[in-house]
This record gives sequence, C-alpha cells and structure tokens, in this order.
Amino acid sequence: MEYQKILTSIQNEISSIDNTGKVASYIPELAKVDAAKLGMHLHCINSGHYHFGDNTEKFSIQSISKVFALTKAMLLLGDDLFERVDVEPSGDPFNSLVQLEYENGIPRNPFINAGALVVCDILVSKLENPKNDLLDFIHKLVNSKNIGINRNVFESEKKHSHRNMSLLNLMKAFGNIKNNIEIVLDLYIHLCSIEMSCEELSKAFMIYANGGKLLYNQEQIVPSRKVKRINAIMQTCGFYDEAGEFSFRVGLPGKSGVGGGIVAVHPGQYAVTVWSPPLNPKGNSELGMYSLEQLTTLTGLSIF
Amino acid sequence: MEYQKILTSIQNEISSIDNTGKVASYIPELAKVDAAKLGMHLHCINSGHYHFGDNTEKFSIQSISKVFALTKAMLLLGDDLFERVDVEPSGDPFNSLVQLEYENGIPRNPFINAGALVVCDILVSKLENPKNDLLDFIHKLVNSKNIGINRNVFESEKKHSHRNMSLLNLMKAFGNIKNNIEIVLDLYIHLCSIEMSCEELSKAFMIYANGGKLLYNQEQIVPSRKVKRINAIMQTCGFYDEAGEFSFRVGLPGKSGVGGGIVAVHPGQYAVTVWSPPLNPKGNSELGMYSLEQLTTLTGLSIF
Amino acid sequence: MEYQKILTSIQNEISSIDNTGKVASYIPELAKVDAAKLGMHLHCINSGHYHFGDNTEKFSIQSISKVFALTKAMLLLGDDLFERVDVEPSGDPFNSLVQLEYENGIPRNPFINAGALVVCDILVSKLENPKNDLLDFIHKLVNSKNIGINRNVFESEKKHSHRNMSLLNLMKAFGNIKNNIEIVLDLYIHLCSIEMSCEELSKAFMIYANGGKLLYNQEQIVPSRKVKRINAIMQTCGFYDEAGEFSFRVGLPGKSGVGGGIVAVHPGQYAVTVWSPPLNPKGNSELGMYSLEQLTTLTGLSIF
Amino acid sequence: MEYQKILTSIQNEISSIDNTGKVASYIPELAKVDAAKLGMHLHCINSGHYHFGDNTEKFSIQSISKVFALTKAMLLLGDDLFERVDVEPSGDPFNSLVQLEYENGIPRNPFINAGALVVCDILVSKLENPKNDLLDFIHKLVNSKNIGINRNVFESEKKHSHRNMSLLNLMKAFGNIKNNIEIVLDLYIHLCSIEMSCEELSKAFMIYANGGKLLYNQEQIVPSRKVKRINAIMQTCGFYDEAGEFSFRVGLPGKSGVGGGIVAVHPGQYAVTVWSPPLNPKGNSELGMYSLEQLTTLTGLSIF
Repeated sequence: MEYQKILTSIQNEISSIDNTGKVASYIPELAKVDAAKLGMHLHCINSGHYHFGDNTEKFSIQSISKVFALTKAMLLLGDDLFERVDVEPSGDPFNSLVQLEYENGIPRNPFINAGALVVCDILVSKLENPKNDLLDFIHKLVNSKNIGINRNVFESEKKHSHRNMSLLNLMKAFGNIKNNIEIVLDLYIHLCSIEMSCEELSKAFMIYANGGKLLYNQEQIVPSRKVKRINAIMQTCGFYDEAGEFSFRVGLPGKSGVGGGIVAVHPGQYAVTVWSPPLNPKGNSELGMYSLEQLTTLTGLSIF
Repeated sequence: MEYQKILTSIQNEISSIDNTGKVASYIPELAKVDAAKLGMHLHCINSGHYHFGDNTEKFSIQSISKVFALTKAMLLLGDDLFERVDVEPSGDPFNSLVQLEYENGIPRNPFINAGALVVCDILVSKLENPKNDLLDFIHKLVNSKNIGINRNVFESEKKHSHRNMSLLNLMKAFGNIKNNIEIVLDLYIHLCSIEMSCEELSKAFMIYANGGKLLYNQEQIVPSRKVKRINAIMQTCGFYDEAGEFSFRVGLPGKSGVGGGIVAVHPGQYAVTVWSPPLNPKGNSELGMYSLEQLTTLTGLSIF
Repeated sequence: MEYQKILTSIQNEISSIDNTGKVASYIPELAKVDAAKLGMHLHCINSGHYHFGDNTEKFSIQSISKVFALTKAMLLLGDDLFERVDVEPSGDPFNSLVQLEYENGIPRNPFINAGALVVCDILVSKLENPKNDLLDFIHKLVNSKNIGINRNVFESEKKHSHRNMSLLNLMKAFGNIKNNIEIVLDLYIHLCSIEMSCEELSKAFMIYANGGKLLYNQEQIVPSRKVKRINAIMQTCGFYDEAGEFSFRVGLPGKSGVGGGIVAVHPGQYAVTVWSPPLNPKGNSELGMYSLEQLTTLTGLSIF
Repeated sequence: MEYQKILTSIQNEISSIDNTGKVASYIPELAKVDAAKLGMHLHCINSGHYHFGDNTEKFSIQSISKVFALTKAMLLLGDDLFERVDVEPSGDPFNSLVQLEYENGIPRNPFINAGALVVCDILVSKLENPKNDLLDFIHKLVNSKNIGINRNVFESEKKHSHRNMSLLNLMKAFGNIKNNIEIVLDLYIHLCSIEMSCEELSKAFMIYANGGKLLYNQEQIVPSRKVKRINAIMQTCGFYDEAGEFSFRVGLPGKSGVGGGIVAVHPGQYAVTVWSPPLNPKGNSELGMYSLEQLTTLTGLSIF
C-alpha cells in the first residue's frame, strides 16, 4: 500500500478546503491553540511511518486519554468493570445526566464523561499513584518518557469542572463512585491534560492494531481478547453522538478529543492520528474526520 | 479454519445451556413457534457451507428484512437517503417517539422501526411494485425463487400495528412520509413477514461479505462503497439498544429479528446465520448471541 | 364592584400596547382571522353583563371545548374517568408523546390533546350521537340554539390531524382507546370547530362560577363537587405549559384556545372571556393573558 | 363553621384507616420518627384555633421551609427573582436534572430542590446572616422565639446531599448559582432542619391566609400582591408531581414536606396543618392528604 502517496494526496486536498469548524473554547487554555495546525501520522505494522504537517507537535489529547484509562482499568479489574459502566452508545446529545438518572447511576459507556469518571474512580481504588502509573503506562506504550501534562490546561480545566462535579455527585448518590470526589476529579483532569503528538499517539495505539502487543518488542501488554473489546467500544462509542457517522464514513474504530485529535485503528494494519483543532458542531475535528474518510476511501480498506 | 468442528462444538455447548429467553409474543402468530428450534449455517467465501440443526427450516425473518430494504433504497436513491434517516445508534429503549419529536421526524437510523418505515416510503415512491421488486431482489441474492411471505404472520402483524401507525403519522406531520400511510405500512409488514431459512439468509448476506458481488456468479449487485456503509450501520445499529453489547461480545456487523434469527457478516470471510426463537430482554435471540460470541472466540477472529 | 369601569380601563390600556403575538397558523382557516379583533365579556352572578369590543362576534373556541367535553364525560362516567386520564400538569412542552410512552398510554390531564382524545373516546362509547349531544349540552348552558361548528375549520383541521392520529394510535396500542380511531378523531375535531362569542362563552362557563347550576333557572346541571374538580383541573392544566404563569399572574382557573380565546372563572363571582387572536410563544392569547391579569389586579380579587 | 366538630370527625375516621404509607428513610434521622404520630391544627382568621392529636409536637418541616425562603427572597429581590427560577409545575418525577439541562439551569419552580437552592443562593447574596435572619423571620410570623433546627437532622442531611451537590454544580455551570456551593448548601440544609409543630406552622402560614398581615397585630409583613403569587405557586407546585391531585382532591394552595407535614391555606378563612409521617409513593403524607380532602369536603368550601 502506498501510504505516503495517499497521505500526501490527502494533505493537498485538505489545503484547499474551507474549514468551517471552531476551536474548542469552553476552557481558555484550549482556545489559545493555533487553528491552522494540521498533522497526520500513520504507523503501519509492517512498513513503518508515514506522515505530513505538524505530526510531531504535542497537543492536548483530552478525551483520547479515556482509552488509556479504560485499558488500565480493564487490566486491573477485568469484566467486573462492566457492572459499573455499560458499553452502549450514548445516543443523544442531551443525555449524560438524563440517562444516569434513568439507569441508576450506571453510565452508558466508558467514553462519555460519566463513564470515564467511573473508570478514574476504579483507578483511584486500585492504584497507589494513579497519575504516575497512567503516565508510566503510556511511556511504555510509546517507548518514551517524554510525555507529560500541560499544567496550564490542567489548571484551566479545574476551574471549569462544575458539570463533572455534578456528574460525580449524582453517581455518588447512586453509590457508583467509591472514592473522594475531589481525588477522582483530579485524576480525570490530569488525564485530559496529557500532551502527545500525532506520532506518539500512533505509536501508543499500535497495541490496539497489534492484538495487544508492543510492536517494538512484541511484549503482550494487553490480552488480545481485551483489545478486541476496546476496539469494539471505540467503534460504537468513540465519537460522542457521531459514532454512527464516523463508522459510516470512515469504518474504523477510533477516539477523538476536543483538542482536535483523532486516533483510528485498523486492526492488523495500522494506527493513525490526525490533528486539526477546529471542531464540527458535534465536537469532533472537522478536517480529522475528513482526512480519515479519505484514507479509507483511497486505500479501499476498512474493517467493513 | 475448521469451521465445522467449531460449529459442532458450539452445538454441543448450547445443548447444555438453560435458555432463559422468551419467544416473542406481541403477535399471536410468532408466539406459536417451537421454542426448541435451533439452527446455524455459516457460508464461507472460500470453502462453502457449514451448519447444524434446523438450518434449512424457514422462519419469520422480521427486522432482518430491513437490511434488504435499506440496500434497495440506497441503490435507488443514493446518499440523499441519509437526509431522511440518520445513521446514529438509537441509544435508549424509550426512544422512538421521543427522538422523532426532538429531531423533527428524522429517525435515528434505518433499522429502528421509524427508520425502516421511511425506507419503505422511499421504496413506495421509487418502485411500481415494491413488494414484488423486493422479493425479486432477495430471489436474486439467494439464487432461488422459493422465498415468500407467511400470510398468517402478515395478517397478524396488520392487526397489531398501532405503534407503527403512530410513528407514521408523527413523521407525516413532520413531512418525512410522502406517500399514503396505509400503503407504506402494508409494504413494511410485507417485508417483516418474509420467511427464510438460516441457509438462505447466509446465502443472501454473502453480498455484504463479498464486497457487493454475488458469490455464485461474481456479478456486482451493490457498489463496494455502499456495502461498507451498510456493514457499518449494521455494526452500530443492528441490535436495537444492544448494539454495543453485540459489538463488544461478537465483534461483527449483524442484524437480528424478533423471530429469533441473527445474521452476522465477517467481510472477506463469511456470512453466518443462527436461529433460536427465545429472546433476551432486549429482544435479541439469546442463544443466537451466545453462539456468535463463541464463533468469534473459537475462531479467534473478528473485525477487531 | 365597578366592573364596567375596570373593563373600560383595560380596553384603554390595551389599545396602546404593541402586540407581539402571532395568529395561529398551523391550519390555514385559523390564519385567516383578523388579528385586530378584541373583545371582553364579564358575566357577574349578581349584577349581570359587562363588556367591550368584539364581545358578540363568534370565533373558533378550539381547546376551550375540552372543558365541555370533560364535564359531559364526568357526568357520564364519574370518577372512573380518572383511571384513563390523570389530573397532573403536563410540565414540559416536548411531552405529549414522551409522557404517554413512560406512563403507558395514560395522558397527563384531560386538557392536553391526548387527554381530550381519551375523553372523546369515552363520549363515543357512552353516547349515541356524541356530536349532537355535546352541542345540545352547550345550547342548554347558554340557553340558545344558535351555536354550531365552522365547517371550513373542521375540514382544515381534518387535513392537519397527523399528530392527533399519532397520539390515538399510540394510546390504542396501550389499550386506552376503545373505539374506532377515525370516529374519535372526528368528534374531537368537531368540538374544536365550535364557534362561540365572548358573551356566549361567559354564559356557558357560568355553571363553573355558580356551583354547577344554570344561572338563568338555577337548575343543577353538574354536582358542585364535580364543578370544584373541573375548576381545579383548569387551574393546574388549563394553559399548556404556562399554567403556572397564568395562575401566578391572574390567579383564576381558566382555559385557553389557539383561536385566541381565554375563559376564566372566579367561583361565586363571575365568568369572563377575552378574545384576541395573536398568541404568545406558548400558544395563549397575549392580550387575553394581559387583560385578565389587569382584571384581577384592578379588582384586587382572585381565588388567592 | 363548626370546625372542631369537623376535625373530630376527621380524627375518628382516620383512626380506622389502614395507613399504607412509608416514613421517609433517605436519611437515618427522619426514619427514626414514630409513624403513629398524628396531629391537625386549624387556625381560623375569625374564630381562633381547632385541633386534635399531636398538634403541639415539633417535627421536621423539611420542604415546607421553602415557602418561608421564597417569601423572604421575594421581599429582598422582587420580580427579578423570577428570571432565575420559573413558576411552572415540574410535571414529571424524573425531571430535576433533565429539565435543568434543557432549560439552561433555570429551575421549573422555587419548590423543587433546584429552585429552592437558587432561592438560597439569593438569600446568601442578600443577607449577612441568612440562617439567623430566616429564623428571625419565622419567629416574627409565629410570635415566638422557640423555633430552631434539629442538629441531628442537619448533620444527617449533610451526609446525604450528593444529589443537591449535583444540582448546585450543574446550575453553577450554567451561571445560575453565584455564591460558594458549600455555603448555599449549608443554608438549604439548615432550613430543611427547622422543627415546628402543627400549631406553629398554622400560625406562621396565617400571613398567606390574611393577605400578608400578621393576625396578632395586623402588621403588613408581605404585600398582598406577593401573597397572592406565593399562594398561586403553592397551588400549582406545592406537591411535587402530585400538585394536580392535591388541587383536584383538596382545592387549596399548600405545601408538603417529607417529614410528613402538610400546610394548606384558604385565603380569607384559615391556615391548617396536618402531620402524619407515613408518605405515599409520591412523597406526600398519606393521611395528611386524606385529612385535608375531608376538611374541604365536610366544610363544602375550597377556593374553587
């Protein structure tokens, strides 16, 4: 597969597109990012790296970190995890609080905020130093210690966390948060504040393309059965209420963040990351969605 | 892959399971079916047929017919179809009417009843004899004319169609149903009343495993791009509000019906059908779900 | 009480108000009405009639007819009625279908469309000629046979009844509609199409101010206990999702219609009707609300 | 009116009723109350006091305190209050968080928890010592300083306040809470923990029956226009999602609390309090509802 040729073609086409998206502004720090940033990085199991643009520049991975948190929690807790968080798509945009009320404090899936907060609660219960342990886990995936959080983003998120506090309190009322709310929130924001580049994310997500093994040394980090399940959850729940649209247009499991990043995985083939900060109305990177749609169209390959 | 060995192993294991599901009873005709019926039929692209049990006995395919209707409508209307029906999972069990109201009469996806009714409305607009044309389409897929409807099921459904009439009227109020409501409903019920065996369904769904080509003569019936999209919709929306669970446990696109049938597709590999009438609380065949989970566990292969 | 002086003062004040409301346009016939029409008519138990403007001109009473239908059904069925329709305010604007689904086809109250349709179903069950019987009932209340329906409005509503058909089918699915749907709808639309003047409505609603007795001959038409209950339902449910606002500003039980009419009752004192076609965003006559607020402010009397 | 005779008749009838209600148990302190407690106290404007049973025993007034808080906030802020909290009935039991989300953090009315929390936020903004000032206000209404809070109830509620914290955080995210969340919650719980007897509550609520004047010295504490509005809000919103039922059966404005108390007001006539801890499924005192229904039935008088 001539991946570099395809990426270059995507880069060329994208440069002429009128980007109508808007950079996330709910926290001041995210709003400061340069809207023109654009990078793509594909890491192929068999043939190495392909990329263009700002692929080595770090950005705020935000909700993409929920995949790492889920993976770690599945390793620690096994299937019991899914008694505290479901795996169904969230369906409608108005839903977080509504569904939590109907469904007795059990979040729909681990990638909506409520679900990721439950995952963080589990990590707080199971780990002595959850913040460090999660960063160590990512360091191992990427084979680099040069990954950390953005302190300004962390502080900025902290000041705008009333909705997450609302979710935490509601789930606490239902008994689905076991630890101190402040500590759980602190871990959650810490994870959202991690910064990584397209290249680093593609390296990290290689375990999901490679059946749970690190590509660089073939160590089995996650059992292949769990990897399948994580990919399945990314497929059905990775894009807020646009999961169906992403599946329909792109046809790969993936996860987006409001920092403008999207990672997608073709199991057995590659992991790929795009970064472009302006978001569409559903909160996913507009050019990111388009680039990945072009990728599976031009390669003629998706999981379907 | 030793498919027959795997199927036999599934058959053995299932025979010892205490089936807690319940046969669909919302219409009297469906309630009459023998709960002990059980059949499985896998049609492999490369190596032919594998099966056990009642795999050649016809049953009411019910909502599985929505895949054929969607395919035909996509061939007739192209992407304009998706201005009248979305491709997002429906999310919550209480939703049909609620979401239609919020979202101005645009159904969430073509596999919930509201969406399938819009698809039928399109077929009524575009075809002179939609009932015959749809049967002809299925005949071509299966390479057999021995497929028709069950007249008793048809009459029984007709008498219990107030919810669908409610949906049709609501969408008509929003302008998203163009034809006479009775005619659209008549086509919809006709499609639900089609009877096919596991073997016939696996043959018919081979186009979704084979990139849109009939396996028996390699004729391209559906463009491969459309097949991908149909598979993607099956993946995210094929199992009511249990789509995430099916994706998580089985990892294949598929579609279920309240007659107890489930068809699943592994693109490039096979189409497989299971039939066992007792349904779990979410309306999907209990043993069918389990058999397919075993299939992808024992083969070690899924799309993820 | 110097009612005429107060009414004249209201008339003067209203003439200088910039009416921002909009005439109902969901059916063409209603949209034709002259937006400048304005009439008010107060019928006092002790001291006769006070009025201004177009108080003797007939208009489409629309939902005001639901009070007559409820009264008749309560006389025929007694408290069993309230097993098929509740008496709680409907709360939110998106609700009719939502709440019907949650609450198994039992409408929130007899003044939302779903509830009035159940009331009509009861009238169809209990009466041989429900259309005539209802008109006869109104004739008796007003002591005049000069009240009928507007045939154009009837035909126009009939063509725009998909939402009501949707409600009827949903409730039929739940078993809460017993008769043929078309017949129930026909009666419902017939009642909505009745035309009355402010004067006639105030005369008719006198039974609710006079403990169930006709003022002109003191015949007890409705038991006083039932009158209290009807007044209570008007108080909590008479103004769609603006019942609280009306209660807060006006402080009287009442009922509005999208034809621009509002009738209110001060038990033991008077019945009063205002008519001004432009509606506020919640569907109630803008100047009607204001006039009645002025009435209870200037008289210094309300039920509170 | 022979009130004492009527009250005695109610007492006799109630003693033979099989009470199916359940004492509130969401906080341990409330669950400790003796379920057999029963008292009623009617304070008539013209003719003094009538009572039976435990009418002088103090109990936890809980949500009844929301009427005092609202009154004080209306005196401090005027109609601007109603830009931050609406006056519509809340409609459905699942609603608090749902409606706050739809309606941008504006609670439906001041008697649901969210609305009372906004009222408390206003009191915190406007008063130096809101806790003391509110108690002083009640002392003045009752003409007694012998009213305070139950410290055990206060501590117990504090430990079970996650739902209220959830509401506060959500409204803070929408900008409708201005002060520190902990301080607002502290005031709210303080008010819920006030203890009063039936006699004291009937004395205090006399201002709502007496047009805003203290009966004991005719001092105008609240303008009569505001009293009308408070009565109107009690009428439409005073009983959670059973406001319609109370209005229908009793026909008076009133307010209930989960401590088992209900106060009702007949403007111009009397204020009456009943206390019986077991609650019906909607959270209102079962015997309290019944006693008040009997009161308006036997007197033949209500506001309707």
